[in-house]
Formats: sequence, C-alpha cells, structure tokens
Amino acid sequence: MNRLYHVALSPFCRKVRLTLAEKKIEVELVEERYWEQGPDFLRRNPAGKVPVMKMEGRTLSESQAICEYLEETVPTPPLMPRDPEGRYEVRRLCAWFDDKFNQEVTTKIMGERVWKKVMKQGYPDSKNVKSGLSKIKFHLDYMGWLLDQRRWLAGDMMTLADFTAAAHLSCLDYISDVDWDRSSNVKDWYAKIKSRPAFRSLLADQMSGLPPAPQYAELDF
Amino acid sequence: MNRLYHVALSPFCRKVRLTLAEKKIEVELVEERYWEQGPDFLRRNPAGKVPVMKMEGRTLSESQAICEYLEETVPTPPLMPRDPEGRYEVRRLCAWFDDKFNQEVTTKIMGERVWKKVMKQGYPDSKNVKSGLSKIKFHLDYMGWLLDQRRWLAGDMMTLADFTAAAHLSCLDYISDVDWDRSSNVKDWYAKIKSRPAFRSLLADQMSGLPPAPQYAELDF
Repeated sequence: MNRLYHVALSPFCRKVRLTLAEKKIEVELVEERYWEQGPDFLRRNPAGKVPVMKMEGRTLSESQAICEYLEETVPTPPLMPRDPEGRYEVRRLCAWFDDKFNQEVTTKIMGERVWKKVMKQGYPDSKNVKSGLSKIKFHLDYMGWLLDQRRWLAGDMMTLADFTAAAHLSCLDYISDVDWDRSSNVKDWYAKIKSRPAFRSLLADQMSGLPPAPQYAELDF
Repeated sequence: MNRLYHVALSPFCRKVRLTLAEKKIEVELVEERYWEQGPDFLRRNPAGKVPVMKMEGRTLSESQAICEYLEETVPTPPLMPRDPEGRYEVRRLCAWFDDKFNQEVTTKIMGERVWKKVMKQGYPDSKNVKSGLSKIKFHLDYMGWLLDQRRWLAGDMMTLADFTAAAHLSCLDYISDVDWDRSSNVKDWYAKIKSRPAFRSLLADQMSGLPPAPQYAELDF
C-alpha cells in the first residue's frame, strides 16, 4: 500500500492528495506531526518536511516533483496539457502559488493563525496576518483576470495549477480567510473544483482544537 | 533575438543562463535592477522578479518552468533523463536547492553580504550570515554523499539539478563563501561543471563595487 505522510492543513500535502485522488491512486494517509518528530522522520526525508510519499518501496518528497512523477507514471486523467507552451503555463502557475502566494499569503496567515497555535510557538503577530489579508486581494484579482480569459487557471483544461491554487485557498478557507465575494470568477472556479470527488477527503479534514469554519465543507458557500 | 532580463548574481537567472548556453540558444542578456524598476518591469512580469525571458514574442518567468520549457522545446543536449524515476530525482534536487538551500544558505549569505549593499538596505546582519555559513556545511556534506554514489548529483548524466546547485554555489563562490576543502567529491564536481563552455559567461560576471574573489574565475581553485 502506498503511504502519504502528511499534515491536514498543509497546501503542499493537499496538492499531492488532490493529484492522487484525481488519478484514483490509493494511498494510506499518515498524519506526520513533523515538528514533534525525531530521527525517524528525518531518515524518511532529509529535507525534514511533508509531504513524504512511500510508493512501491521508494520514498518521494517535494510536492511538485511528486505530482509531475504521478503525471508521468499514471497519465490518466491528464493534469498537464501536451504542448510545451501549455505545460510551461501550468508550471509557472504552480510556482506562483507554491512560492509567491505561499510566501505572501499562506505562511503569513496560516503561519500566524494556525501553525503557531498547533506548534505551541506563541501568539499570532497581527502585522503578518494583516499583510497576508491585504496581499490575498491582489492574488484573487489576478486569478479573476486569468479566469476572465480561460475556463481553468492555466487554460481550457483542469491542471496541476488549479490543484495547487485550490490547495492553498482551501487551507485559508478552513479558517474563513478567503473573501469569495471579491471575484465571481474565482468563486465559480472554486465551486467547480470543490465539488469534485477528489476534494472530498480535504473537506473531511479536522484539526484537533481548531474546527473548520461553517462554510468550509459546504458546496454552496 | 531572445532576451533574458537578469541580475548577475541571482542563482535563478544563472540556472536559466546555464541551460540556454548548454543548449546553444542565443540570448541577449539585459541587466534588470528590478528593485529600482517601475511599472515597465511589472508589466513584463507581474511576479516582480527575475529571470524574465522574451522568446519568440512570449514572456516567460519562473526559472524552473523556463528550464523545463527549454528542455521540452530544445531537447539537445538533454538535461533530464528519460525515465520518470530519473526525472523525479532531478526535480526533487532542483527544488532542494531552489527552496531549501536558497532559504537556509543563499538568502542568508548573499542577502546580507551582497543584496543589502547593492539595494542600499543597510548593514549585514551577522546572525544571518553565521546561520548560512553553518547550514552550508550540511548541504555540502549531503552533496558529497550523493556524489559518493553517482557521477552527477541526480545520477549518471549531467542534469538541471547540477545546474541548479552550481548556480547557487557559484554566487556564493563569487564572495568566497564556499569551503571547497570540505568535500573532495563536491570540489571535483564543481571543477567539472565550471570548466564547461556554458559556464564562461558566469565567470565573466562583475558586480559594480563588488569585485569577485580571486579564485572565482580560476578553473584550478
């Protein structure tokens, strides 16, 4: 059995979970509270972070590398287009969300409001939260602009770029920090992706001591 | 003519420059002091960073997405193996250096010793420099361990993973912050990669007001 060591509200783990579920690859989820871990976890992944996947005797890490590997080995359904230009656009947007959005928004808001609490590292710094809440507007507008021209974020098909963006936004939505009224394009896009069977496991997530916001699992939000 | 907007000591730009040069794709280099830039640069790249490439009328950003695009459109010489396992390992290591190494070492050392000076943002914080100089040892040891088992970082052929690692290390070597005596494997690997024609343009780089360390361009270092 394949095994994914993960944390419920990690966008990087969620991106891999969505990809696995969409491709119907069965996997056992193992919660990895890596901040409490010792040498066992570091032996599994010297980078010291999640996700880590055990698959057919191999240990895989780095979410984008894992997703591209899954795309190459289990090509159906495809989550990347075939043409190099389309593939470039998917990868550019994956990097946009995993790098820029993550630094400007996810780590600022989730880092302060969730991880500090879970990891017992003190109280949220409201300056960071404010900065994240201000920056997310720019990103939602950018997504809205993309979706003005395209059915999905990277083009006419649903791709890893949509899963990457949805992975980050769904974590923020768990604590009700996404203003879905800002862009009807983005809201419609999220409603489409949220209603996929691949999303179900994410919507069932519960962090102990931190219940999800009421609309989190609602398909009509 | 293709155009690459870049900064001399950016590892992300260097990775793209190495890939372009290895594949013999001609490109005009344009220095982009993006921290002094206004709306023109942001129009070229809404992410507001380098590298940005103009190629056949298209504007490309995000170094890994650019390199994968070049690999798919100009496959000779190959910088990725053909098997999914080998490709996974290349991507894992690219992420290792662009993410983990960058955060723990490059931004700590280059950020304090070079970018604060160039961007006129004050004096280096010695705590960050010390932390970077301490962490780089762990990374050099990890590279040495990989190179104990492999000719190149990701396997038996030279790949994007080697270019990514060399891009970061070459920036640090410009200011003489790599201890090449720590691992003879790593030193031999860097000597091989440094002597490639693709590396020449990097070795000719000069930052105004910050001349390179004496051994920087020497093939025998």
